[in-house]
Amino acid sequence: MPIPAPNLYPPFNIVRLSHVELGVTDLAWSRGFYVDTLGLQVTHEDAGHIYLRAMEERGHHCMILKKADQPSVGVLGFKVWDEADLDRAEHWFRGRGLPTQWIERPFMGRVLRTCDPFGIPLEFYARMDRLPPIHQQYRLYRGVRPLRIDHFNMFSSNVDQSAQFYSDIGFRVTEYTEDAETGRSWAVWMHRKGGVHDVAFTNGTGPRLHHTAFWVPTPLNIIDLLDLMSTTGYLENIERGPGRHGISNAFFLYIRDRDGHRTEIYCSDYQTVDPDLEPIRWDLKDPQRQTLWGAPAPRSWFELGSVFDGVPLVESDLKAQPIIAP
Amino acid sequence: MPIPAPNLYPPFNIVRLSHVELGVTDLAWSRGFYVDTLGLQVTHEDAGHIYLRAMEERGHHCMILKKADQPSVGVLGFKVWDEADLDRAEHWFRGRGLPTQWIERPFMGRVLRTCDPFGIPLEFYARMDRLPPIHQQYRLYRGVRPLRIDHFNMFSSNVDQSAQFYSDIGFRVTEYTEDAETGRSWAVWMHRKGGVHDVAFTNGTGPRLHHTAFWVPTPLNIIDLLDLMSTTGYLENIERGPGRHGISNAFFLYIRDRDGHRTEIYCSDYQTVDPDLEPIRWDLKDPQRQTLWGAPAPRSWFELGSVFDGVPLVESDLKAQPIIAP
Amino acid sequence: MPIPAPNLYPPFNIVRLSHVELGVTDLAWSRGFYVDTLGLQVTHEDAGHIYLRAMEERGHHCMILKKADQPSVGVLGFKVWDEADLDRAEHWFRGRGLPTQWIERPFMGRVLRTCDPFGIPLEFYARMDRLPPIHQQYRLYRGVRPLRIDHFNMFSSNVDQSAQFYSDIGFRVTEYTEDAETGRSWAVWMHRKGGVHDVAFTNGTGPRLHHTAFWVPTPLNIIDLLDLMSTTGYLENIERGPGRHGISNAFFLYIRDRDGHRTEIYCSDYQTVDPDLEPIRWDLKDPQRQTLWGAPAPRSWFELGSVFDGVPLVESDLKAQPIIAP
Amino acid sequence: MPIPAPNLYPPFNIVRLSHVELGVTDLAWSRGFYVDTLGLQVTHEDAGHIYLRAMEERGHHCMILKKADQPSVGVLGFKVWDEADLDRAEHWFRGRGLPTQWIERPFMGRVLRTCDPFGIPLEFYARMDRLPPIHQQYRLYRGVRPLRIDHFNMFSSNVDQSAQFYSDIGFRVTEYTEDAETGRSWAVWMHRKGGVHDVAFTNGTGPRLHHTAFWVPTPLNIIDLLDLMSTTGYLENIERGPGRHGISNAFFLYIRDRDGHRTEIYCSDYQTVDPDLEPIRWDLKDPQRQTLWGAPAPRSWFELGSVFDGVPLVESDLKAQPIIAP
Repeated sequence: MPIPAPNLYPPFNIVRLSHVELGVTDLAWSRGFYVDTLGLQVTHEDAGHIYLRAMEERGHHCMILKKADQPSVGVLGFKVWDEADLDRAEHWFRGRGLPTQWIERPFMGRVLRTCDPFGIPLEFYARMDRLPPIHQQYRLYRGVRPLRIDHFNMFSSNVDQSAQFYSDIGFRVTEYTEDAETGRSWAVWMHRKGGVHDVAFTNGTGPRLHHTAFWVPTPLNIIDLLDLMSTTGYLENIERGPGRHGISNAFFLYIRDRDGHRTEIYCSDYQTVDPDLEPIRWDLKDPQRQTLWGAPAPRSWFELGSVFDGVPLVESDLKAQPIIAP
Repeated sequence: MPIPAPNLYPPFNIVRLSHVELGVTDLAWSRGFYVDTLGLQVTHEDAGHIYLRAMEERGHHCMILKKADQPSVGVLGFKVWDEADLDRAEHWFRGRGLPTQWIERPFMGRVLRTCDPFGIPLEFYARMDRLPPIHQQYRLYRGVRPLRIDHFNMFSSNVDQSAQFYSDIGFRVTEYTEDAETGRSWAVWMHRKGGVHDVAFTNGTGPRLHHTAFWVPTPLNIIDLLDLMSTTGYLENIERGPGRHGISNAFFLYIRDRDGHRTEIYCSDYQTVDPDLEPIRWDLKDPQRQTLWGAPAPRSWFELGSVFDGVPLVESDLKAQPIIAP
Repeated sequence: MPIPAPNLYPPFNIVRLSHVELGVTDLAWSRGFYVDTLGLQVTHEDAGHIYLRAMEERGHHCMILKKADQPSVGVLGFKVWDEADLDRAEHWFRGRGLPTQWIERPFMGRVLRTCDPFGIPLEFYARMDRLPPIHQQYRLYRGVRPLRIDHFNMFSSNVDQSAQFYSDIGFRVTEYTEDAETGRSWAVWMHRKGGVHDVAFTNGTGPRLHHTAFWVPTPLNIIDLLDLMSTTGYLENIERGPGRHGISNAFFLYIRDRDGHRTEIYCSDYQTVDPDLEPIRWDLKDPQRQTLWGAPAPRSWFELGSVFDGVPLVESDLKAQPIIAP
Repeated sequence: MPIPAPNLYPPFNIVRLSHVELGVTDLAWSRGFYVDTLGLQVTHEDAGHIYLRAMEERGHHCMILKKADQPSVGVLGFKVWDEADLDRAEHWFRGRGLPTQWIERPFMGRVLRTCDPFGIPLEFYARMDRLPPIHQQYRLYRGVRPLRIDHFNMFSSNVDQSAQFYSDIGFRVTEYTEDAETGRSWAVWMHRKGGVHDVAFTNGTGPRLHHTAFWVPTPLNIIDLLDLMSTTGYLENIERGPGRHGISNAFFLYIRDRDGHRTEIYCSDYQTVDPDLEPIRWDLKDPQRQTLWGAPAPRSWFELGSVFDGVPLVESDLKAQPIIAP
């Protein structure tokens, strides 16, 4: 199944990915990880929640840590252009037979809650509380110096179908991995905001969140984080990297918190605003697809992910396997 | 005069700045400068022209060096979303009483040639020849490792009017410098593609091109360029920097070729895709506006620029002065 | 007067520069500057003193901040190979008619206090309290991430004579600046520990301490410090840089505390252990000597320095002038 | 067996490691690898040899590639302080019953050829042809921008004995790995020139050369090399890294040429000139010893090395095993 052609005239205008809500079992531990170690800034905190933003963001939050009995992902949030786009989104999702609901969320205007056909909980909004810029308050920078949330990566039991659905709402494919034997997509990277991706889908039991990515200034910030984590009790939380992805050309590091939520630290992809940008195809068996420098990813990276709260899992019928580290 | 509010529903859809044509008096010298030293890639070359692209670009060219008797700038190019946008643009410019013309340009589809009210020659297109990606052909990287064209900065004899005009066609203000005494804008930064700017305007005799900027990976690439230029005969072509701008937060270097055309090498601004992004105001007398670290710019930086071919100059009536290095 | 030939068999074995004592008028302010902003680690603190070390040092201190009514420099400290070298040093200095004294210093073994012929107070020791390594305790890194003290730079009223004296005790010249008209040395860089310098002398009213330098990992740490200082109230303390010296090839930044004590932040010189290393000559009129990239140093950099406590000043009779920023 | 105490008064004065001669089976291939890819500079070339230096070196060569039928290592070279040290060295080696010989070598003064008790061929010299500095000829920098040869690492069948021998000639231990069960040294790092090592020994079938290391400016140069090698046909030559060693704190990459000769690219160790520098002990079972960030080294890294020309191999009787990647 070929990847979808760019959908240049989508039914409503999504600006970018915006925020994720993670259910975590120990808020204090998670604060130590995301705030003290990664360097995200707390914008609100109460008994059950910590709201965070990255250094160049002016929206109120890009991550909500929510006290939970079991680790899970609550929702993935996206910002749309204006209020009319919200209404158009509601209309469109209902037309697809997907559930929609207007809900109340702190620090946000109208919020449309819905889901994709695989059950991934999504929320759309046009307005979130705006905070003063802090990107030049350099005394606040810590850890890996996270600048902004960059993308979500999800396991899908049918990547071709996920790609078609997100194409229908305007995400455009920048790169993809094909299983040469079946011609099916094994993974796909799709964007709205002009980088390599706002969302990506990888073949596997789904839907699950593979990771949330943050953009940082340079590879040296990632090296700093590795040095910090490995000497402050977070050695076991380092999963993969540093390295350069063939796909996206990004310099990367993957870390996992104690609840299994994975974060990618990421820099140096490329600009993708041209509507006629040609997607780059990679073969599933090409080791440089994963890591340009050749090192395969560990098994955990291919198999582990975070479930979405209350969403049942489905195995993929595409059994093609990438190269996995022994 | 207040800066324009974001124009969220422009008459046609400009994707990004695209290319500049520079009239140069010695093609061989310019090749040494832009190709061998800066590291741009030649995509076409004939007796009178050199076409260049940066490392992550797939459009045929972002810069045309054209043999000329006198240095000047031929045109500034912009990419629009689709062919219908081109027609809408023609209609809009004609409605403003500005000249429009469909012209032939090598390596490009339909090209609409027009100008802004100050006479800056502009061209719009939807399709340019596409070239294979080279961003992972690391043997090709040289010099400062330029990744993409980033923005144009122009002298305007009336920045408020320039800002309004470009706002009318959809550019949104991200930062601006105000002369506190008169309340007038002294400089303004405006974008389409989601960074701090595609175009900027600075008070001064205009219209002239102040500089064309290229995006590079990290500050260390700029340091490499300084080391290279200062030991290969280009010491006199270094004008200002390295430093960090208060405005845009970019790490910068300014260099000038033998014809006086100025290039900014630039990294690390921030993402501006939110339609409700609040512009940041700077006071003309704030020295950190220019350089966050305090060093004022040299006089040449405020006074010298490239004329547009055949376009008469007008002095600004706003006589407010920034802080200039002695 | 030619620069001294390498003295390969000195009368006693100096290992390296070791520490400086700075008289400061406000210990709390200085703590904010050297500890919170630069990132030096406090190893001892009492009502009148703060002892500091850099991140890879295991000796107890490289800098002593001492409460004083007037800013001045108390002493420059050097480590010798063993106790016998201390005795040889005493013998040698007495033989030169210079005052010597065995003094008590906290955290140190035997200390020989003496001075050079211009009156610069010097102290030599073989043993200082050793502290556990902290260079892999990455949570402690702050500010510019200072790794080690690198060198002292001093104004001398007769650089040729200073060079000869320090050559007599084993310092070897790596680079020097000559006034072509008189053939006299205008500045000289001399080392013991295998880098470009442990000590340097610059023509001017002396003896005064021009600066103390710290070694940092990469130019990006210097950029981080500039960002931090310029947004936390230390903008006025930035004097010169960033830039690359022609001499030493180092990437540098100069800052001054409120008492006028100057610190150089420094990285990337080269290894000089070969006894037959040829000194590099620079002409006083060569602007790249100062800054490879061409920018001249400000007047303050050539004129201001810290006096040594109680040591009278003498003007230089060498009136040759370097290029100074207007 | 405890590691040797610092030998502060050795029988002759070794300044630093200097050069290695590698027997290679295809000079043209090796030129592509060491010159075009790594960026070493050719200083002499004839039908059977290529002489190389790194960017800040002024001695004629740090590496000799010699055409050979079988890959092997010809000799490890060291520079001594002066001619008298050469004579003292000859006397000392003869006193140990080791063979000595004065030989002719191009571009060098008197050369003493000898070997260590395990048979490693060594040569000592005081004078080698000196070349003009090129460290500020930035147009010459290529590849990983190698600044200087840094150290040799060798397999030894008895690391305790190797450590004692090299201590006898003045090398001082900076870090070491102990097998806790037997109390024996599993690996040891020893220096002369003031960094973490000039030579290191690792337990294994020996004597063999494990690797030769080059010092580069920053971790970003190592990332550049990985990008270059992985896109120019050298993907298979990348063996391990990038990462940070616990031991030495260095940021590293290991690559192997087609003859199996291994090169380490290396930056950011620390200064070790203090004679009372305390060695740092690591436990063989500590995974952070190898890589601070936790990733174990591949089996090849522990097992493969280059033989010395004509020198028989002996297995180690210390069978303790480090952690090896599966």
